[in-house]
Amino acid sequence: MATKDSAPVAGKLWGGRFTGGQDPIMTQYNESIYFDRIFYSQDIRGSIAYARANIKTGILTDHEFSEIERGLNIVLKEWQDDKFEIQPGADEDIHTANERRLGEVIGKDIAGKLHTGRSRNDQVATDMRLWLRDQLEKLEEYLVDLLKVIAARAENDIEHVMPGYTHLQRAQPIRWSQWLLMFGSFFAEDLQELRHLKARVNKSPLGCGALAGNPFNIDRDAIAMELGFDGLIMNSLAGVADRNFVVKTMQWGAALMMNMSRWAEDLIIYSSGEFAFIKLADAYSTGSSLMPQKKNPDSLELLRGKSGRVFGHMAGLMMSVKGIPSTYNKDLQESVEPMLDHVKTVGDSLQIATGVLSTLAVQHENMLKALTPDMLATDLADYLVRKGVPFRETHHISGQVVSLAEKEAKPMDQLSFEELQGVDKRFERNVMEVFDYQKSVEMRSAKGGTSKSAVMEQIEALKAALAGGQ
Amino acid sequence: MATKDSAPVAGKLWGGRFTGGQDPIMTQYNESIYFDRIFYSQDIRGSIAYARANIKTGILTDHEFSEIERGLNIVLKEWQDDKFEIQPGADEDIHTANERRLGEVIGKDIAGKLHTGRSRNDQVATDMRLWLRDQLEKLEEYLVDLLKVIAARAENDIEHVMPGYTHLQRAQPIRWSQWLLMFGSFFAEDLQELRHLKARVNKSPLGCGALAGNPFNIDRDAIAMELGFDGLIMNSLAGVADRNFVVKTMQWGAALMMNMSRWAEDLIIYSSGEFAFIKLADAYSTGSSLMPQKKNPDSLELLRGKSGRVFGHMAGLMMSVKGIPSTYNKDLQESVEPMLDHVKTVGDSLQIATGVLSTLAVQHENMLKALTPDMLATDLADYLVRKGVPFRETHHISGQVVSLAEKEAKPMDQLSFEELQGVDKRFERNVMEVFDYQKSVEMRSAKGGTSKSAVMEQIEALKAALAGGQ
Amino acid sequence: MATKDSAPVAGKLWGGRFTGGQDPIMTQYNESIYFDRIFYSQDIRGSIAYARANIKTGILTDHEFSEIERGLNIVLKEWQDDKFEIQPGADEDIHTANERRLGEVIGKDIAGKLHTGRSRNDQVATDMRLWLRDQLEKLEEYLVDLLKVIAARAENDIEHVMPGYTHLQRAQPIRWSQWLLMFGSFFAEDLQELRHLKARVNKSPLGCGALAGNPFNIDRDAIAMELGFDGLIMNSLAGVADRNFVVKTMQWGAALMMNMSRWAEDLIIYSSGEFAFIKLADAYSTGSSLMPQKKNPDSLELLRGKSGRVFGHMAGLMMSVKGIPSTYNKDLQESVEPMLDHVKTVGDSLQIATGVLSTLAVQHENMLKALTPDMLATDLADYLVRKGVPFRETHHISGQVVSLAEKEAKPMDQLSFEELQGVDKRFERNVMEVFDYQKSVEMRSAKGGTSKSAVMEQIEALKAALAGGQ
Amino acid sequence: MATKDSAPVAGKLWGGRFTGGQDPIMTQYNESIYFDRIFYSQDIRGSIAYARANIKTGILTDHEFSEIERGLNIVLKEWQDDKFEIQPGADEDIHTANERRLGEVIGKDIAGKLHTGRSRNDQVATDMRLWLRDQLEKLEEYLVDLLKVIAARAENDIEHVMPGYTHLQRAQPIRWSQWLLMFGSFFAEDLQELRHLKARVNKSPLGCGALAGNPFNIDRDAIAMELGFDGLIMNSLAGVADRNFVVKTMQWGAALMMNMSRWAEDLIIYSSGEFAFIKLADAYSTGSSLMPQKKNPDSLELLRGKSGRVFGHMAGLMMSVKGIPSTYNKDLQESVEPMLDHVKTVGDSLQIATGVLSTLAVQHENMLKALTPDMLATDLADYLVRKGVPFRETHHISGQVVSLAEKEAKPMDQLSFEELQGVDKRFERNVMEVFDYQKSVEMRSAKGGTSKSAVMEQIEALKAALAGGQ
Repeated sequence: MATKDSAPVAGKLWGGRFTGGQDPIMTQYNESIYFDRIFYSQDIRGSIAYARANIKTGILTDHEFSEIERGLNIVLKEWQDDKFEIQPGADEDIHTANERRLGEVIGKDIAGKLHTGRSRNDQVATDMRLWLRDQLEKLEEYLVDLLKVIAARAENDIEHVMPGYTHLQRAQPIRWSQWLLMFGSFFAEDLQELRHLKARVNKSPLGCGALAGNPFNIDRDAIAMELGFDGLIMNSLAGVADRNFVVKTMQWGAALMMNMSRWAEDLIIYSSGEFAFIKLADAYSTGSSLMPQKKNPDSLELLRGKSGRVFGHMAGLMMSVKGIPSTYNKDLQESVEPMLDHVKTVGDSLQIATGVLSTLAVQHENMLKALTPDMLATDLADYLVRKGVPFRETHHISGQVVSLAEKEAKPMDQLSFEELQGVDKRFERNVMEVFDYQKSVEMRSAKGGTSKSAVMEQIEALKAALAGGQ
Repeated sequence: MATKDSAPVAGKLWGGRFTGGQDPIMTQYNESIYFDRIFYSQDIRGSIAYARANIKTGILTDHEFSEIERGLNIVLKEWQDDKFEIQPGADEDIHTANERRLGEVIGKDIAGKLHTGRSRNDQVATDMRLWLRDQLEKLEEYLVDLLKVIAARAENDIEHVMPGYTHLQRAQPIRWSQWLLMFGSFFAEDLQELRHLKARVNKSPLGCGALAGNPFNIDRDAIAMELGFDGLIMNSLAGVADRNFVVKTMQWGAALMMNMSRWAEDLIIYSSGEFAFIKLADAYSTGSSLMPQKKNPDSLELLRGKSGRVFGHMAGLMMSVKGIPSTYNKDLQESVEPMLDHVKTVGDSLQIATGVLSTLAVQHENMLKALTPDMLATDLADYLVRKGVPFRETHHISGQVVSLAEKEAKPMDQLSFEELQGVDKRFERNVMEVFDYQKSVEMRSAKGGTSKSAVMEQIEALKAALAGGQ
Repeated sequence: MATKDSAPVAGKLWGGRFTGGQDPIMTQYNESIYFDRIFYSQDIRGSIAYARANIKTGILTDHEFSEIERGLNIVLKEWQDDKFEIQPGADEDIHTANERRLGEVIGKDIAGKLHTGRSRNDQVATDMRLWLRDQLEKLEEYLVDLLKVIAARAENDIEHVMPGYTHLQRAQPIRWSQWLLMFGSFFAEDLQELRHLKARVNKSPLGCGALAGNPFNIDRDAIAMELGFDGLIMNSLAGVADRNFVVKTMQWGAALMMNMSRWAEDLIIYSSGEFAFIKLADAYSTGSSLMPQKKNPDSLELLRGKSGRVFGHMAGLMMSVKGIPSTYNKDLQESVEPMLDHVKTVGDSLQIATGVLSTLAVQHENMLKALTPDMLATDLADYLVRKGVPFRETHHISGQVVSLAEKEAKPMDQLSFEELQGVDKRFERNVMEVFDYQKSVEMRSAKGGTSKSAVMEQIEALKAALAGGQ
Repeated sequence: MATKDSAPVAGKLWGGRFTGGQDPIMTQYNESIYFDRIFYSQDIRGSIAYARANIKTGILTDHEFSEIERGLNIVLKEWQDDKFEIQPGADEDIHTANERRLGEVIGKDIAGKLHTGRSRNDQVATDMRLWLRDQLEKLEEYLVDLLKVIAARAENDIEHVMPGYTHLQRAQPIRWSQWLLMFGSFFAEDLQELRHLKARVNKSPLGCGALAGNPFNIDRDAIAMELGFDGLIMNSLAGVADRNFVVKTMQWGAALMMNMSRWAEDLIIYSSGEFAFIKLADAYSTGSSLMPQKKNPDSLELLRGKSGRVFGHMAGLMMSVKGIPSTYNKDLQESVEPMLDHVKTVGDSLQIATGVLSTLAVQHENMLKALTPDMLATDLADYLVRKGVPFRETHHISGQVVSLAEKEAKPMDQLSFEELQGVDKRFERNVMEVFDYQKSVEMRSAKGGTSKSAVMEQIEALKAALAGGQ
């Protein structure tokens, strides 16, 4: 295809920086060993499984396999003992590094057979999926821990009543436990998604080769079973082209952290001097280098800030993958580093959140003080509803009472019975019983509501969700 | 709470544009009727179910319910007949509009009881979930259609062999069907996700009230059942605060379209003059206003471009939700318009893709012509592997043959047997049999490979995936 | 190029939905007339300028030009009077529609000469740039209006002292005007960027043709001058390929709205019952359908929420453009709708913000009440600094005073002189003068600080920035 | 503020992991020393300038300043010699580390005065701006280098004619230099933006304190001048709250890389076997571990992929900043790591691009071979235009010629004169002169076109843009 006259470029430069046959910036731009070394054990486990399957194909003898297995276990040990010496320039990635070292340990004649029918394309996909699968297990543990703390606190703190907010304006009294369980509800859904995700990630691409599959009729199912995969990626092109499993992981993480950010935002507001509903433990607060009196909720702010970071991972990878041609392109290497940081950030964040929630102090007297009678305006309207007045009308009447109280500059519950009757004749003496925050929360006993029984039911549901796998 | 001296602002201006008690830009900035009117039937169905449940609570008599049901059905009919008259300014959203009209139809005394214990907060969440659930059903149909076409074409076109690419460089021969099934594999996973998503969306928030639940012990399960929901959002704060179901839908759509964009990219390249592997039907191409000879794959470019659009919806909503305080904030209104456009764009795109794939012509002779003997270099290496030479060595030897062919400026398969032996003595006469593209694809018979049987197995698996619900 | 045996596809279907020669979904997916009609006047102005330049090239006679100009003005009038009748299907975009109609008005013989040497590729880029340039002028006005209100309020309200926050914890007393001017500083930078952006957008692509330039030696400078452009896009491929001007506009808008979102967040918090520093005018608040007492800052929440929306536009377009091949691809059509909504949303938001700020009431007594003596802990440390004690030590001493006050459960300024001396002997009688919020803010008189003079200097700088063009 | 009964939490746990007074994960989650150490020299320069200004305020004597300067220079040397020993746990950030070490070197009595009136809030903003300003200088150099290579190649390769593409379909002949200069045009705009950006970044926040300014009337202008800043951030709250300068940098980098990604996409396609227009130097290509014949454009794919990465930085940070309350919040720490990686990635990418372009070989014979007569269909239409036929008609006629050629299965330029006349009588003998690619590109001599003179004019304009500062 090359035309004769296509000018050779050796030494031909256009004013650029690069003069020799090598560009050190390119070497560094291209190599992945400094981050994909984290997959060393996955890479080795995958190679052993792959080699074992190659006994049956006739590529390896039993002896050759034993040697490979022995050698790889030596290499593994070197990594574990932090004794593996990366050869800069030569070991561009973990696959190359492990195979190079294996050759040194058992000799190139046998080691040179390991990569038969395999490509780094299916190899790296295998490493990533194995690694990620194990990490997702850990994330599940962290998330379950957080949910357990939510359930435990919700049960323990069930008596605390606080203002519920919409639009950050006091709306109606709720239990603090109800607030906790809102996020319990969100995170429990995230847990369910995670369990779904794990199954998606845990599929084997090994045996897909560079793109077209394996020409030695290797038993892909046997490999998958040895590696603990749940099944196969059933198309060889898909096996090497797919980074959807990383995208899906990051979408999951970004959505979780978006919820976490709302959780943190609430708690930051609740820990302000003006709200003062909670107090963070010292371990999760920091001081100021200038202002001696400060105690800042840094942990929560970092949780909120890092929700941006993990979103950035997701957005960046989606852009990297979008619109590239199919099967493997080097662009896909850009999935690795963000994945590593994403998983670590989400994992740390879950643990921090658990720590924060385990140790914060609830200042329930301040919660009580923040309740105001106008938050019972709906209850006042409901009072008349119970007397058969249409809600639209009672809503209007109750609004008039609110206005009257504002005009008289007294809290609604300090209005006299006569004043109330002045607004609407249908108010009777027992109307004053409306002004009771406890009664108000207990009144909301329909499913999902704020009454004690409704809250307990939620706690039980949450506990059940934790127990159940998928 | 208001302090006495807080200056009244009536008429107090700071050089701004706004002078009266109303700001028309604010009215328009705030109102949602011009887009949430799409939920008119969901809003009405929800209201009927809610009203029916309020017979048992004692809020409504049987007669009152009948009137409400009758009235709402009249309003529904008006919408369906395009006769509903929105009152600008007054009807700020679909809920307000429907209730206003109901009052006119059946009188305010009964209509005024409909909203008892309910808030627009749980109402809009209900409308959105009902609407979205139904839309997801449609998207599932469209996606299944696309997958059926993939399966049908893969079966019909199974004989066509073409170059498989990595890095957009010719790599190894594959079947065209294998290319089709790569995306079959991607989209089948998207289908599985969609079925999972549907369950998540289809939960009832009705009965959560403004945030604290329902004070009349309404039977939320009965409402949910009437509306075809699979269950309840079990925490009243979560019921009104949650837009995760929209985020998850958009994440799903954006990931699907990311795959679609890769699919489109491949086909755009394949329909270029230089590749010329496929020819789009006229219905999916357009001409140029300046260049008479042009036939452009606009459909595919739009698919690729719209993958950005749907990503934008997702990214925008995640940013809107991130970090806002809990329960309902008006920010959440920003979930509606993007959701509508998102769902429409994904639905249209799926149909376009199906149309494109159904009607494109495969130029299989061009595919064949694009195959070059150097794409069999791996097969040549494998030839020696079968004679016991380690792959690393055969890879090197095959590389030398490639170089020799380049140097001699002839295709690899035109090298003489002597020339091959000059590279390595272990080549025997039958080496020339390697240079056979059909044989090469048939050789890859391990699961997921390019052999006819392996491809047929994939097709069967795909068909099975279509059939199975979740 | 087409090979003989490439199967004709007429009527050949693969189970897809599409059966005829036309796909109505494709028609709708492809056409842009329903949104690019907004460019009708730009399209016509561009055509007139283009036609005028084609007198000199000899393509048009003076008479032909006059006819075209006359005809286009008639078409323009039809649009302005809302009488232009779009022909569904035929008028796929504004360019086609205008030319079709021109032909009807003046006859096809002359009208058919208009598009000579021009393509819709350079035409749409011209329309977009003209439209956007004019819109950016409007946005500049709105932004200047907002900044004027900030300056005016900062000057008028300069006496109000409030808590300044870091980490949403009370930190040091500041003037309310200092808070206003923080955003004055942000938005003034945004104004500067906008002026820079306008110059970038206002370049003419007309005369670039489909991609390769104009073959009749048209005078592009003359066209650009007639249309009020500041210069040319100097490469014909760039002229049609470039949507960077839209990306840059959206980056600007998204960054502005990010700042606006922080502004709104602060004000939402300040208008909560717990802070109660400000009160929004009724025009920018809304009530609740369920809770009669509620007054919600919907305007601010929408501002905050829409910051996500405009970010989504930007993110989506960047993804659409990323990685597509050069020059015009249909993907670029996806720049139009988001641009329209982006510009409208930013413009509305600026006006809303101006309205909100113009009309809100400052509850300065509540601001004062929120100040607490521990916010002067730094001033207490500085007191000792002035006596020569190293700051690190004074920071520690002041921290001990804070602890003592907490232990004694009294405000810091209620500690006795003896108690202070118990912490550090270097405290003298005049230490009590430290506990004066006005003094504290006046003390910070270095540039950019909170003293009255420093604030006035900022106000003057802001006014100067408004006046200055670029 | 704390209420009496607020339960102490010491030792009170809710099933969480955390038991002691410290959480090691929190320590690591919070600390920044492992990445902000990169600012060591900026931090020290800033401290010296700050200390010098504190002589005039009376905080430091001349001697004390000399000691601080001496000590800081020792600390600087330790960093430079890689001898600075970070104390894990204690040195949570670079500011703390440097001050701690300064105290050890010169004693705490004097060192303890350094931080007077300063906060880490203004300190870190100063460090970041100083660092970024210097990095932007480097990026400018790299970008200028790339543009020089573009100009040089465009001049040198000016004779090469190739197909120009729209929709990835052959459209009209262009010069290869015209393609180069399209990106020259894009990148030259990016250069202009960069110069604008530098001015924005290079403003001094030092002297803003924690948020409220400096209480010792420090001369902020003098500090700014010493540090080479162009001016001040004029509001103390803005000084510590602002990360817009990072956002703007990332928006710039992401937009640049979006263009780079299109550039890379074109070159990847041009280096495919099917196009074969260019050949990358070996230094920028890599081979395959499985397929001996492969030579992959990894450098270009990485450029394309990393455009996603840098977009992710930008998107993530915008989300982190969006909607947080004003002034400093710990969320802002999340701006640092992405900024570091962003700047490095953009810088490396620019250098790689320069290297790739400097060394690639143009296979101009293949470019010529890819030209087809139907690409001159517009020229054929223009031929009749010159005879006075309206373009719309000529476009149609030329289209008929294209169809005829397809029907006859010969290239358009092989149609006989009689055949052409059969389509339209107005074709004369000289029509065959239309079929000349060189003539076609020369014909487009209007500004920005493909003629040699028009291309040379672009090159000169580009060179002028490089020279000009802002």
